[in-house]
Amino acid sequence: MHVLVNAAMSADGKLSSRRREQVSISGEEDFARVDRLRAESNAILVGIGTVLADDPSLVRHDRQRRRSVHGADANPPARVVVDSRCRTPPDAAILDDDPTTYVLTTEAAPDTRRAAIETAGGTVIVAGAKRVDLADALDALEARGIARLMVEGGGEVIFSLIEAGLVDALSVYVGSLVIGGRNAPTLADGDGFVSEFPRLELTDVCRLDDGVVLEWRTKPDGETPAN
Amino acid sequence: MHVLVNAAMSADGKLSSRRREQVSISGEEDFARVDRLRAESNAILVGIGTVLADDPSLVRHDRQRRRSVHGADANPPARVVVDSRCRTPPDAAILDDDPTTYVLTTEAAPDTRRAAIETAGGTVIVAGAKRVDLADALDALEARGIARLMVEGGGEVIFSLIEAGLVDALSVYVGSLVIGGRNAPTLADGDGFVSEFPRLELTDVCRLDDGVVLEWRTKPDGETPAN
Repeated sequence: MHVLVNAAMSADGKLSSRRREQVSISGEEDFARVDRLRAESNAILVGIGTVLADDPSLVRHDRQRRRSVHGADANPPARVVVDSRCRTPPDAAILDDDPTTYVLTTEAAPDTRRAAIETAGGTVIVAGAKRVDLADALDALEARGIARLMVEGGGEVIFSLIEAGLVDALSVYVGSLVIGGRNAPTLADGDGFVSEFPRLELTDVCRLDDGVVLEWRTKPDGETPAN
Repeated sequence: MHVLVNAAMSADGKLSSRRREQVSISGEEDFARVDRLRAESNAILVGIGTVLADDPSLVRHDRQRRRSVHGADANPPARVVVDSRCRTPPDAAILDDDPTTYVLTTEAAPDTRRAAIETAGGTVIVAGAKRVDLADALDALEARGIARLMVEGGGEVIFSLIEAGLVDALSVYVGSLVIGGRNAPTLADGDGFVSEFPRLELTDVCRLDDGVVLEWRTKPDGETPAN
């Protein structure tokens, strides 16, 4: 499986403010770029923090705007939530409509919540006892035909995937604004590394909207072997 | 006064690890770039957090390497610490040698510590009751002939300066590595903004070493008026 992390951050590395409210970081050109990436992906993954903070539907921007006129895509990418305790609300936008939604969870998730997600149309995959075993969970997704996975955040799940050595590429839109905040979410949160920092290889730099897109791939011989 | 913030951060916006230990983010080409910026500046400013964590001397990299052979510069930039309670240790490297070191502090700083810094050769400037009044302090520096100030961090003082509308330009080396950590210091910490995020104008993008340098200026008509 090929795993691409895509995110938009401020000049100081923040995904949103300390209130976890969405901030307009990029613009129309970046939306179009993200739509292309989504269209090339078999599934789009987010963490439960992002679901609870933003309630994203993870349909494409163009589809979101045009769905009332043109109807749904033929093959919209599946959606994936990393949600160790099945906290995804049954009425979350990510469970709307037709694309399949996988909820990656653990044995620690309460049965009632798991059942509620399934009733709402989600497909639950159990991997791990308390924390989602991401390697196993991604294997389970691959077995269901997901060859290209796009990760859209937030910083906790991005860090976990990097830590597990499961990320192949990183695509970051750096916007021309400052968000600030020692408690604001960043591109890679979690506990963080204290040594053997994963090295990346910068493969492309491209100005877009009023910011810049930086593309990296992880180094197969580095600290984060490709999956 | 012209105020330039210069920093090196990881792909995820961190200045160092959660342990506050220095991480090698850039390389020789960036050191040379930073040396040129330092040489063009009348003073280099850091926060007390950086002094306590890194004990920087803030002499130029090339000077650091060649001082035993060539001796000191003719006109090394002065050094400035923002240190509301005079916690700069009298034996800190930033108080070494000949360039003037200004310690910007407040009325709340204990007299004994203030005296110890002065005995060690530092010039204390009092501005503000409990927090350093940065606008007043920078005016006091300007009155002493400092027309170009370079800020080298950390994230707390950078945020404070941006919040006070005192920053004119931002120069950020983005390195090709991931540090991660929800508690790791970032380019702009502090409380953070929750609305009216300061907008920047991206003026240059340049690949350097194995990363990229992004140059911004603050928008005079934006949320952070130039000083």
